[in-house]
Amino acid sequence: MTQLNVVPFVSVDNMMKLVHAIGIEPMMVELADRIEDDFRRWPSFDKTPRIASHSDVGVIELMPTSDGQTYGFKYVNGHPTNMKRGLQTVTAFGVLADVATGYPVLLSEMTILTALRTAAMSALAARHLAPKGATTMALIGNGSQSEFQALAFRAICGIREVRLYDLSPDATAKCARNLAGSGLRVVPCPSAEEAIEGAQIITTVTADKQFATILSGNMIGPGVHINAVGGDCPGKTELARDILLRSDIFVEYPPQTRIEGEIQQLPPDHPVTELWQVITGAAPGRRDAGAITLFDSVGFAIEDFSALCYLREKLATLSFCEQLDMIADPDDPRDLYGMLLRAAPVVVKRA
Amino acid sequence: MTQLNVVPFVSVDNMMKLVHAIGIEPMMVELADRIEDDFRRWPSFDKTPRIASHSDVGVIELMPTSDGQTYGFKYVNGHPTNMKRGLQTVTAFGVLADVATGYPVLLSEMTILTALRTAAMSALAARHLAPKGATTMALIGNGSQSEFQALAFRAICGIREVRLYDLSPDATAKCARNLAGSGLRVVPCPSAEEAIEGAQIITTVTADKQFATILSGNMIGPGVHINAVGGDCPGKTELARDILLRSDIFVEYPPQTRIEGEIQQLPPDHPVTELWQVITGAAPGRRDAGAITLFDSVGFAIEDFSALCYLREKLATLSFCEQLDMIADPDDPRDLYGMLLRAAPVVVKRA
Repeated sequence: MTQLNVVPFVSVDNMMKLVHAIGIEPMMVELADRIEDDFRRWPSFDKTPRIASHSDVGVIELMPTSDGQTYGFKYVNGHPTNMKRGLQTVTAFGVLADVATGYPVLLSEMTILTALRTAAMSALAARHLAPKGATTMALIGNGSQSEFQALAFRAICGIREVRLYDLSPDATAKCARNLAGSGLRVVPCPSAEEAIEGAQIITTVTADKQFATILSGNMIGPGVHINAVGGDCPGKTELARDILLRSDIFVEYPPQTRIEGEIQQLPPDHPVTELWQVITGAAPGRRDAGAITLFDSVGFAIEDFSALCYLREKLATLSFCEQLDMIADPDDPRDLYGMLLRAAPVVVKRA
Repeated sequence: MTQLNVVPFVSVDNMMKLVHAIGIEPMMVELADRIEDDFRRWPSFDKTPRIASHSDVGVIELMPTSDGQTYGFKYVNGHPTNMKRGLQTVTAFGVLADVATGYPVLLSEMTILTALRTAAMSALAARHLAPKGATTMALIGNGSQSEFQALAFRAICGIREVRLYDLSPDATAKCARNLAGSGLRVVPCPSAEEAIEGAQIITTVTADKQFATILSGNMIGPGVHINAVGGDCPGKTELARDILLRSDIFVEYPPQTRIEGEIQQLPPDHPVTELWQVITGAAPGRRDAGAITLFDSVGFAIEDFSALCYLREKLATLSFCEQLDMIADPDDPRDLYGMLLRAAPVVVKRA
């Protein structure tokens, strides 16, 4: 029997080892498949909009869900100003627990895992929504998430060319450098307009906590798929409202996306389609070649649950983890106090 | 500058060492004072009822709060049937984070810390509500939390005698054994009726997830203080409804207590007093010597926040913690992918 008082912990170092043992792209392919499987059984999950604690400079969120057997949650922050202080905009960690006992069974860093699952989720949505034969993606916003997006779309959607733009040329240079040798044709562009030229997929992944207009209406022609990743909290959007009005909009979990997504710009009854219904075939995806499809992505708890369950399975053979003494587990479960008492240091009396 | 990628972690073993370094009773006295200080500045906290995920056998909850500078949350489960499987009914861990950056700054076991803060909270409430000169407490339910309650009331309220009752004589024997040498007069009783004889304070701390009647109306005379600890989720109560109707009821956070506390038996507009207002003097506590005061305790996030902040301060001098590599922190904050890429194992080519 496993020791219930210890919880497997995946550190940042171990996560990086695990990712390399699997391979970055293979891992995102597997994550996308895993998320897709869980989206197929969407009704079997407990769902709630994430619980946000906002401040002037950012947000800290808890994202719980459960499928009745396993419970999971992620802690994640979003602090756009962190970057100027040399810190990550988004950091995260997550936990799985056994619903039957309430005991945690996994603790993991999730900054890296979130980067992977977010990109896998975007590519999964595009696999169902983007125009057939898409080979070129514009990537607007070249920060922490950008390379993951590029590689996920390469591995999952067959993208061959990424066209990069960022307000900061340094960010674009960094992204291009990191993607050299990836097999992608990488085209740094001096403007968003040039980045979207010839792109069938447009990914926006900027981080400012404000109503920004990364894409304006006249930039978007028919037949594209927009993957809007950056807007993910109240007051933070990336797209002009008229793009939304021309698009077929697909979301993860409407009660959360209405609060956090691009559609916070629209009336609360504006029609949207839940992505899980497209995946199961219950709702149509792309209507025709000329439609504009928009995945208004904010990130939902089930995606993290999928990623943590995937991780837990991988740890069975790739044991990149430590054991944390996190759960007090007295021999007699009623005797927590006795356990504490018996742990008292022995006082050695002098002779 | 502290390394931001590492998070101090207090294991169960280190928590027990820390508790013994401070002393169990002194620590509960300090925790009660710390909670009292935070209750005095109640309006400065973000508050939300805890986020519960219920199953047939128990509940898993997240309890977040923030004072605008520090964010904290606790993960806690409640599984009454765990005991039969040799597991703890309640286990917990908690996290503090810096609101300005969103980075976690502390991870700690909280099974033991919750046991201490729950008892400290009960005694703190009794310090404000119990009849003056109370020296005898009935303790109904002699499980994990019972000894902590007894010692907190001894240290904080001057209780000299505890009268024990539990459905299980083994539990009572265990509690009595653990309290031997504590300075308390310990009286095991064969029934709840006998346990409350002569008691000015009645503490109920049972764990069944059902509407139970640990105390019925005819058992409760005037002038007592009832500390109802065990009822803490929907469908789980300990007191007969008519006791509630005869009592002045004090609660932590009404929106949560209405869902989880004894008062779920009452209409949603039944008057209750928020304890923090008694502490600040804004609301009256005990009206007169004959009143029945009831602290309908369910446990609120601010109490855990207080406990975690207290722990964090103690770690400055009592360094009972490890450092966890939990936060991915690349040199260039936009270059998470580059950090991952550079962590790839070096492949040595054969000559």
